[in-house]
Amino acid sequence: MQLPKQVQIKEVGPRDGLQNEMTFIPTEEKIRLVNRLSETGLNYIEVTSFVHPKWIPQLADAVEVLKEIKRHDDITYAALVPNSKGLERALDAGVDEVSVFMSASEGHNKSNINKSIDETFPVLKEVVDGALAAGKTVRGYISTVISCPYDGYTKPEQVVYVAEKLFEMGISEISLGDTIGVGVPTQVDALLQEMLSFYKAEQLAMHFHDTRGTALANVMTSLSHGITKFDSAIGGLGGCPYAKGASGNVATEDLLYLLHEMGIETGVNLKKIQQTALSIEGIIGKKLSSKLAAIARGEEQSCRIS
Amino acid sequence: MQLPKQVQIKEVGPRDGLQNEMTFIPTEEKIRLVNRLSETGLNYIEVTSFVHPKWIPQLADAVEVLKEIKRHDDITYAALVPNSKGLERALDAGVDEVSVFMSASEGHNKSNINKSIDETFPVLKEVVDGALAAGKTVRGYISTVISCPYDGYTKPEQVVYVAEKLFEMGISEISLGDTIGVGVPTQVDALLQEMLSFYKAEQLAMHFHDTRGTALANVMTSLSHGITKFDSAIGGLGGCPYAKGASGNVATEDLLYLLHEMGIETGVNLKKIQQTALSIEGIIGKKLSSKLAAIARGEEQSCRIS
Repeated sequence: MQLPKQVQIKEVGPRDGLQNEMTFIPTEEKIRLVNRLSETGLNYIEVTSFVHPKWIPQLADAVEVLKEIKRHDDITYAALVPNSKGLERALDAGVDEVSVFMSASEGHNKSNINKSIDETFPVLKEVVDGALAAGKTVRGYISTVISCPYDGYTKPEQVVYVAEKLFEMGISEISLGDTIGVGVPTQVDALLQEMLSFYKAEQLAMHFHDTRGTALANVMTSLSHGITKFDSAIGGLGGCPYAKGASGNVATEDLLYLLHEMGIETGVNLKKIQQTALSIEGIIGKKLSSKLAAIARGEEQSCRIS
Repeated sequence: MQLPKQVQIKEVGPRDGLQNEMTFIPTEEKIRLVNRLSETGLNYIEVTSFVHPKWIPQLADAVEVLKEIKRHDDITYAALVPNSKGLERALDAGVDEVSVFMSASEGHNKSNINKSIDETFPVLKEVVDGALAAGKTVRGYISTVISCPYDGYTKPEQVVYVAEKLFEMGISEISLGDTIGVGVPTQVDALLQEMLSFYKAEQLAMHFHDTRGTALANVMTSLSHGITKFDSAIGGLGGCPYAKGASGNVATEDLLYLLHEMGIETGVNLKKIQQTALSIEGIIGKKLSSKLAAIARGEEQSCRIS
């Protein structure tokens, strides 16, 4: 098996995770979570989102959180920014890297951003221009790269179309999201074959949701294509707020177990991540869906097999 | 990606699943479960185990269940048989195929069977001889093929050593079990490279537990080696009775989703499997851990990603 020796984990739990929780997590708990994550060896944490609080009230305290976390020099603290207004707040709060986002499919982009794909580009360009002018790097998210809840399967060429526009703006990396967690390795393979005929593996990150249990299989396929950057969320946070128990992002601890057992270095301490995951269960008021959180809870099994 | 066109699912839920449930499932519920499974398109169901009820009281009704299920001509109804006494009961109950079992590691074999590996062979040979004489086919399980809770990592050569003895006895197929669910694709790859230098892919089945979320990734690696037979348990049954929420065998419905989405045929109806899984939640008194059961429960998510 041909696998990379090192992988970078992009922790998105505080943003992609907490924005999908039913309850508003108190600001001081969010800060505590990010501070704990900063002690685990992660070098990239997506802290929050500057989407208008009307849309994501869960992260209405974005400025406060980003300002009050304890910064480590070797960690990039990133945030989602939807428009120029959001950029202003993000820069004021001292964001290290700005993430812009849109979908590869019209239906989801319309539902999520209320604009067509082509109408979205100018809005994002304004953000990217502003961020670059302020000396920040910019990351791009493309959602629904495998399938869209409204339009069905997404053609890889459609992902390339959006990626090309984003790279032209000057972003440094694109995260490809299987937003609804339906993807399987053959689809990831087809997508990456297409993308890697235009871009280098270092320009791409993969963002899998484990809704149907296929996330780690999809990670394997991505690794075999030389992908070395993966988004994940501590505890597998990010389930739908309206669906108790539905799993969200691939759990950081499950991803770490897979990578470390295969001898791939991440620099992240699995035990500390497991402990941090368990520490937030009480705060979010539900049991996390991740397997390695269950094991840390002492639910490990080595039962009879006869 | 090179993948097989067809895969056979060996449903082990009624045996490997229910033997690990805390509560005794009433006999009529077990019969109902197997009867429902017989309507899903499965052509192989491991119904029960003839291990002495002292060791597995959950399956003390093995004879009754096997006798009273409604048989379909195109389905193989198998059962686990530990010794000659068990074989007698299994044959009396009309078993179609006999499964013998042992571990690749001394520690687990000793703990599970109370014999050394070499002491186990004669006991199994007696069962295999008897089953073959009765015109039955015999399947062999080798447990702890990746790692053992007592001895640590298992060397692939040790698995070959046990497999060779079993094949010499006249068994037709070996199921390789990652019993404690610790395996990752690189380990599965190493094991299969070794095994496939001696045996054909058709002689092997893979038996993964999803304790650490790696089962489907391991299935992918197995498929890439041409493996076309996989054990799985409806609902992901088979968690440890002493560990609430710990996941067991890879769930049949999760495996089916992966295979079908990649265009691999199984002949099994995913929807019927999902419905059957939900129908047993009330009976076993807990929420199943499988992802596709959660989706069937209506917990599917297609939430905001901005």
